[in-house]
Amino acid sequence: MKTLKLRKVAIDTYKENVAYLHRDCPLYRSEGFQALNKIEIRDGTETTPVIAVLNIVDDETIIAPDELGLSEQTFSQFNGIENSAVYVNHATPPTSLRLVHEKIAGNKLGKKDFLHICEDIVNNRYSKIEISAFLVGCAEGGLERDEMLYLTEAMVETGQSLDWGEPMVVDKHCIGGIPGNRTTMLIVPIVAAHGMLMPKTSSRAITSPSGTSDTMEVLAKVNLKPDELRSIAQHQRGFIAWGGSANLAPVDDILISVERPLALDSKGQMIASILSKKIAAGSTHLLIDIPMGPTAKVHTQNEALKLRKLFEYIGDRSNLNLEVVITDGRQPIGNGIGPSLEARDVMQILQNDPHAPVDLKEKSLQLAGRILEFDPDVRGGQGYYLARDLLESGRALKKMEDIIALQGSNLIPTRPAQFHYQVLAPTAGFVNAIDNLQIAHIARMAGAPMDKIAGIDLHKKLNDPVEKDEPLYTINAEFNADYQFAKTLAVKNSGYTIGEYNEF
Amino acid sequence: MKTLKLRKVAIDTYKENVAYLHRDCPLYRSEGFQALNKIEIRDGTETTPVIAVLNIVDDETIIAPDELGLSEQTFSQFNGIENSAVYVNHATPPTSLRLVHEKIAGNKLGKKDFLHICEDIVNNRYSKIEISAFLVGCAEGGLERDEMLYLTEAMVETGQSLDWGEPMVVDKHCIGGIPGNRTTMLIVPIVAAHGMLMPKTSSRAITSPSGTSDTMEVLAKVNLKPDELRSIAQHQRGFIAWGGSANLAPVDDILISVERPLALDSKGQMIASILSKKIAAGSTHLLIDIPMGPTAKVHTQNEALKLRKLFEYIGDRSNLNLEVVITDGRQPIGNGIGPSLEARDVMQILQNDPHAPVDLKEKSLQLAGRILEFDPDVRGGQGYYLARDLLESGRALKKMEDIIALQGSNLIPTRPAQFHYQVLAPTAGFVNAIDNLQIAHIARMAGAPMDKIAGIDLHKKLNDPVEKDEPLYTINAEFNADYQFAKTLAVKNSGYTIGEYNEF
Repeated sequence: MKTLKLRKVAIDTYKENVAYLHRDCPLYRSEGFQALNKIEIRDGTETTPVIAVLNIVDDETIIAPDELGLSEQTFSQFNGIENSAVYVNHATPPTSLRLVHEKIAGNKLGKKDFLHICEDIVNNRYSKIEISAFLVGCAEGGLERDEMLYLTEAMVETGQSLDWGEPMVVDKHCIGGIPGNRTTMLIVPIVAAHGMLMPKTSSRAITSPSGTSDTMEVLAKVNLKPDELRSIAQHQRGFIAWGGSANLAPVDDILISVERPLALDSKGQMIASILSKKIAAGSTHLLIDIPMGPTAKVHTQNEALKLRKLFEYIGDRSNLNLEVVITDGRQPIGNGIGPSLEARDVMQILQNDPHAPVDLKEKSLQLAGRILEFDPDVRGGQGYYLARDLLESGRALKKMEDIIALQGSNLIPTRPAQFHYQVLAPTAGFVNAIDNLQIAHIARMAGAPMDKIAGIDLHKKLNDPVEKDEPLYTINAEFNADYQFAKTLAVKNSGYTIGEYNEF
Repeated sequence: MKTLKLRKVAIDTYKENVAYLHRDCPLYRSEGFQALNKIEIRDGTETTPVIAVLNIVDDETIIAPDELGLSEQTFSQFNGIENSAVYVNHATPPTSLRLVHEKIAGNKLGKKDFLHICEDIVNNRYSKIEISAFLVGCAEGGLERDEMLYLTEAMVETGQSLDWGEPMVVDKHCIGGIPGNRTTMLIVPIVAAHGMLMPKTSSRAITSPSGTSDTMEVLAKVNLKPDELRSIAQHQRGFIAWGGSANLAPVDDILISVERPLALDSKGQMIASILSKKIAAGSTHLLIDIPMGPTAKVHTQNEALKLRKLFEYIGDRSNLNLEVVITDGRQPIGNGIGPSLEARDVMQILQNDPHAPVDLKEKSLQLAGRILEFDPDVRGGQGYYLARDLLESGRALKKMEDIIALQGSNLIPTRPAQFHYQVLAPTAGFVNAIDNLQIAHIARMAGAPMDKIAGIDLHKKLNDPVEKDEPLYTINAEFNADYQFAKTLAVKNSGYTIGEYNEF
């Protein structure tokens, strides 16, 4: 067995491991390696080899013939040091790939099968191609509910888990798809002000104009270390931070990195993704929000109820005290869409400002109320009133200010955005429909979430009466190119339907 | 819109387009690019943009902040020159991806749909992840026979086609899986000696110990230019060359580069792959060989007949005069496995050497006979005898020598391989079974097809009587490491089953 000298190549290949070998490397010919082959790399120790996709290099300044280069992420997974000796071999296909074939052929897999697949994925034995095949095999009703449970469990077991050492750790999750809708930032201070532990980690926006982490970041630092988070939770019973740095259900992150560009509709995958993260994060009580509407992720009552049953089935079998609420997803919730505008809505509600958006406030109180009722001392049906009292008394605002102070407050940009465009009603009438997808698309084109200040400010909501040429919403942008893109998109299709009065 | 300076990066990324951007490039932040994002690259012209996956670089010697690097293959697709100005944008997902979702959901696609998908694939708009999703959607009975036809047609239409200007251009294809089995190298000289046009392009081995091109390369050059091939066909009515350089059904090559590591069982994909290449190559008459056996690709008569019907259905609707023969695939055909050993078998048969393997000779005569019967002047049932006459008279040998001379003959290595290992019968009895897959695996481990001389020489075939410790086969290897690997594998499982006499 021949060795190569390890070298770090300063190329960022994200969640794909890439290794670089010079074409004149003696191993290249003798072992029959080809570009895009998978290889396994070992140092002298008995640890699991690192698997990487091979690129062949024709430039000795990048990599010499006696060296093996690893991209930044690949190098960081390796215990070796530069110039240490490594062994390289053809990687054998993951042994669990035959289980993926079984799944594609329509057969049911068991608990051990999913564990086997997840172990291979977390050890980087799956290429993106193989992950895609697994996801498609699981998509479109490809998983029975038992299998969703097995997949959830396997995703938890192949990562780390948090233990908060308390009998009740609450959390909430919305399946997404509704612009604005920043309820979490209201629920956490309300619930924590009551004394419940709600250590909330959230994601950043992937395809939406803002994620909870993006909006919270307008007010406070969200990229915190695990021990900082523990300390804040201890002092304030809650925080709102970015969850990306913990190694919770890492298979989920890998699957999502492939699932996202595919835009697959995979309920089983979505449920396993949500619940595995929550279980690994140490949650004991979880509220799931399923918004329903013609441009939401879930369109019909029937679909929503099916999804609720699946969440309940897996939650019950995972020792998760889980409640599902089906909410109105016919339009964006709140007025602002984009980090700064959403943060403004949230603070207005906490400050009991009369201009605060009523729909976001009411929805947040409803959801916070359901979470408060997890507390055995809160009577069924009293949660909403308790939540309202916590909010209107200013206790929730105080809690939010304390949380922001501990996370580290950020300077809130108060200046308006550079470019504005008002979208006007083409005719008088009533707002009959607002297209969540189109509004989200325009807000992203305007620069959200990369530019905190960019986005959309809604002036009219469903069933509101409008005069001809009355502003429906304002687009805010920081760059002229973004502004032009968003404006063009809105002129083509504003996302609003104006018509006769039409109570749904 | 901002521009970057184009630069070639000497990294070979095979069939995946990769672009390199420095982390300090102003576009990196302002456009929100991330590693593994897909971008589209344009020069000032109106041509189709090149789509590539982005890698982020932290080393200015690889790429400077004002440059855009392209891997070797990506650069070659681009009309620009180094240092010319290029524009970079986020690539939008291929518009045909929603059709892939339809297919995954179990819906039937039409001719236009497959054309749309193939156009996006050939323009590099599909990532490997998306191609994998398409393949899985088409796998395991995912395609109806109409859809296989549409896919075949779409794959032909999105590439170039050859026209030989003759009413009859014959070809043959074996679906593969049987080690040895080098019938093409006998059929071409027999059929061409009869005067039929058989311009045979073949593949190199992908997962097998040798492809027809690998074996022919022992005798002659196979990497020829299109006009050289035309000239040889004109003078000799046939050739045996590598088909990789022509742009025939290019979608097929892209699909195969993803399908291969997945090892998916996709009949529709296989049929479309085979027939699109043949139609694009200008074939009018085609013989398909389906070997059947417990370790062949097709295990049962029922499976073989189903596959035959599918080939016939699509062939009939593609103006292809197509015959399918189901052959004995219970064991390797011929004695040698690996390029040099197979070339030896072929030449022994052409030279009417009494040591020549009878099974390879007989199978080749049967298949050549069927092709000769495409000639309206050859009576049904007389093809075999005509083929035998062409072979035994030495006319096929003469034809092969002329073809080799025109392609450019290679020096045949006559020395034995460096390392030998004889696998002995563990007990006396009869050869009850030979495992094609295990024999192929051992031959590859021994170094085939990279080392022409490496491989396996079979001494016993099915139903042969053996004494205890009589040699079943010899492993030939050029490198000690390969030798040890192959030997270990053979000791663990020789691939032979010895038992009582047992006529199948």
